[in-house]
Amino acid sequence: MSPLRVGIAGLGTVGGGVVKLLAAQAGLIAARAGRPIEVTAISARSRRDRGFSVAGLEWHDDPVALASSANVDVVVELIGGADGPAKALAEATIAAGKPLVTANKALLAMHGAALAAAAEAAAQVIAYEAAVAGGIPVIKVLREGLAGNQVSRVSGILNGTCNYILTTMREEGRDFADVLTDAQKLGYAEADPSFDVDGIDAAHKLAILAGLAFGAKINFADLHIEGIRRISDLDIAFAEELGYRIKLLGIAERGAAGISLRVHPAMVPLGRPLATVDGVFNAVQLEGDFAGPVFLRGRGAGEGPTASAVVADLIDIARGVRIPVWGQSAATMAAARITPMAAHQGAYFIRLMVVDQPGVLADVTAILRDHGISLESMLQHGRKPGESVPIVLVTHETSEAAVRFALAGIEQLPAVLEAPAVIRIEA
Amino acid sequence: MSPLRVGIAGLGTVGGGVVKLLAAQAGLIAARAGRPIEVTAISARSRRDRGFSVAGLEWHDDPVALASSANVDVVVELIGGADGPAKALAEATIAAGKPLVTANKALLAMHGAALAAAAEAAAQVIAYEAAVAGGIPVIKVLREGLAGNQVSRVSGILNGTCNYILTTMREEGRDFADVLTDAQKLGYAEADPSFDVDGIDAAHKLAILAGLAFGAKINFADLHIEGIRRISDLDIAFAEELGYRIKLLGIAERGAAGISLRVHPAMVPLGRPLATVDGVFNAVQLEGDFAGPVFLRGRGAGEGPTASAVVADLIDIARGVRIPVWGQSAATMAAARITPMAAHQGAYFIRLMVVDQPGVLADVTAILRDHGISLESMLQHGRKPGESVPIVLVTHETSEAAVRFALAGIEQLPAVLEAPAVIRIEA
Repeated sequence: MSPLRVGIAGLGTVGGGVVKLLAAQAGLIAARAGRPIEVTAISARSRRDRGFSVAGLEWHDDPVALASSANVDVVVELIGGADGPAKALAEATIAAGKPLVTANKALLAMHGAALAAAAEAAAQVIAYEAAVAGGIPVIKVLREGLAGNQVSRVSGILNGTCNYILTTMREEGRDFADVLTDAQKLGYAEADPSFDVDGIDAAHKLAILAGLAFGAKINFADLHIEGIRRISDLDIAFAEELGYRIKLLGIAERGAAGISLRVHPAMVPLGRPLATVDGVFNAVQLEGDFAGPVFLRGRGAGEGPTASAVVADLIDIARGVRIPVWGQSAATMAAARITPMAAHQGAYFIRLMVVDQPGVLADVTAILRDHGISLESMLQHGRKPGESVPIVLVTHETSEAAVRFALAGIEQLPAVLEAPAVIRIEA
Repeated sequence: MSPLRVGIAGLGTVGGGVVKLLAAQAGLIAARAGRPIEVTAISARSRRDRGFSVAGLEWHDDPVALASSANVDVVVELIGGADGPAKALAEATIAAGKPLVTANKALLAMHGAALAAAAEAAAQVIAYEAAVAGGIPVIKVLREGLAGNQVSRVSGILNGTCNYILTTMREEGRDFADVLTDAQKLGYAEADPSFDVDGIDAAHKLAILAGLAFGAKINFADLHIEGIRRISDLDIAFAEELGYRIKLLGIAERGAAGISLRVHPAMVPLGRPLATVDGVFNAVQLEGDFAGPVFLRGRGAGEGPTASAVVADLIDIARGVRIPVWGQSAATMAAARITPMAAHQGAYFIRLMVVDQPGVLADVTAILRDHGISLESMLQHGRKPGESVPIVLVTHETSEAAVRFALAGIEQLPAVLEAPAVIRIEA
């Protein structure tokens, strides 16, 4: 059969990985795809040497030109960014009646509904396995493997940079800033780390998973997003003592009142599968009403895993697989009804730094009582009269609103020295 | 669009689950599949009440009649068994030019190559997500999600009955026969448990996974199969002490000399993902050369998870997905070159029951030395001069052949009272 001809925009780590993978396993891929898959055209910012030959490939300085190339059957967009050339290329590819493969989570999280409508009108495919959790085929599992299920909950460790930082902080007893600097040197974190450590990248991925899981149009602005900058080594040590691991989780849940979408650090009880996922690994836990819980774990990023996901999409396209972008037609996607974060119900870990003096605890617990919050446990180690000591409170299930009101009051107490650290507990 | 009309053969737990799932989520499934999926015909051994209505459905006493029914677009085979009516129905369905969905691991493990060739000739699909690991979409992950990878290793907990028994033995300190009786009462084990506890069921599933992973024709007779009947509470206690969990694993590995295929109890180090999978859960660990390790965990059996897998296959068929049975055309499937079990290399846990008397250990270690086997550790607790005591030996990496020869010699020692217990260690 005639080869599937691929145009790749963006020749960074992932683009290079895709070129290498397609070359290394050409025979295997042709057998599985039913036809060869060949890179025929490329667009990248510079023509510097990348360790593989681009001889014989069509070269475009303007990525959008790939969409209209007569030598390209499918476009792989690896430029990144929600707008700009990535979006222009995606739109041009669909308009040209060609399938699009992309690893671009920002693009899909921000413009997924519009792109899906355009793809549907053009009867074309947008495939994005590489956009979420790298080597874990979670898009396929949700969109196809669990297609017979109502999914009630998706929770996951979706950002390897944050998980590496949190794991290293715990294992080596170091603080956030110190570990971040190291992660940057090792290439695990960007020079500007905010997309990762402030939770934006995880939130993009969560928005995609939620759209698929619930068949709902997700408005990215509806996500509650917190990052890991404020996690202290003190909290990590208390977590250990209480039987938890601190993980940056993305959680999408469907409840009676609507869908809640949140990215924040969480205390995960040891013994839960997500608690054991360390380093740069990603993991996702899905809850299907018929399938039950399904847990997936693997490498979330990097050349090999992400290239593996891109190539899986290309093989699907070569095989003629055509599934709607969000697993169902755009017309059947409802706008998500969102539960506000203030309505969240759960248990909370609260750490206060207080002056060790008589009456502090009585003042704190009185405020909690006034907001209907009851405590499961309280920890204070050692005594340092007149000095600053940490007090840890673990609440029973309560509402986010009650906790916020109570903390506003607690922060006003003269003996409370800094803003409380608050970490939600996820069972 | 016109509905996809489904004929179901076999209305046991899984068949009933499929009927219920398709009814319960009819709207969701129609949105995702792009057309309604409706059960139109049924074949089962008796017409007894099953808690759902079969009114209006075509009824066939002979399951093979479903294949030729004018009201059936796709046949779901849930009869079970490698031969007999299940095989006849599968062949008739393909011959009739209709897609087949099956949960029948024995059928695929024994006749998968022939059925795939027939399906390919008829340009038809055989889908079997439900045949392996229930609610975990591992067939899809291997055949599609990791299609760009050379998979070097598949290992998994593939039989929930065995995992339930081993977990309960460990947690409650009870012996095999006792826990098996309970499992039978609870419906976790069959009246004749041999398919499960002797490893046959896990081996069927492993043969399927290996065929997919390696693109190779697997001859079921090539699998090395051991069950869990000989696992004693003593071995479980020693495993705990040494930092292992005993699991019945199915392992398929590709090495330089060929493919090894084996099902046997194994000592899995705590800290490995498979060690933490307890009760009726299943799990699979895959190793892709680009994706890296991918770990999947979920419910391996039962009405809901298995029905979820069957319905995922039906939705794929409704969506027009057509992927070769083994992920590549029959012509490209090579016969597997098999590494014999005797050539297996690994570490071994060996438990001897010996008379506690001077010189026993010297005799045992001399035999091990003569076969080139070195020890990592040795355990003997307490002293009971003249009585029977267990001695545990943990070897460094060695060959299966060396261990077998050494044990044949050790068994001859007068102080060795019973056949040694041997459990392979899987890192």
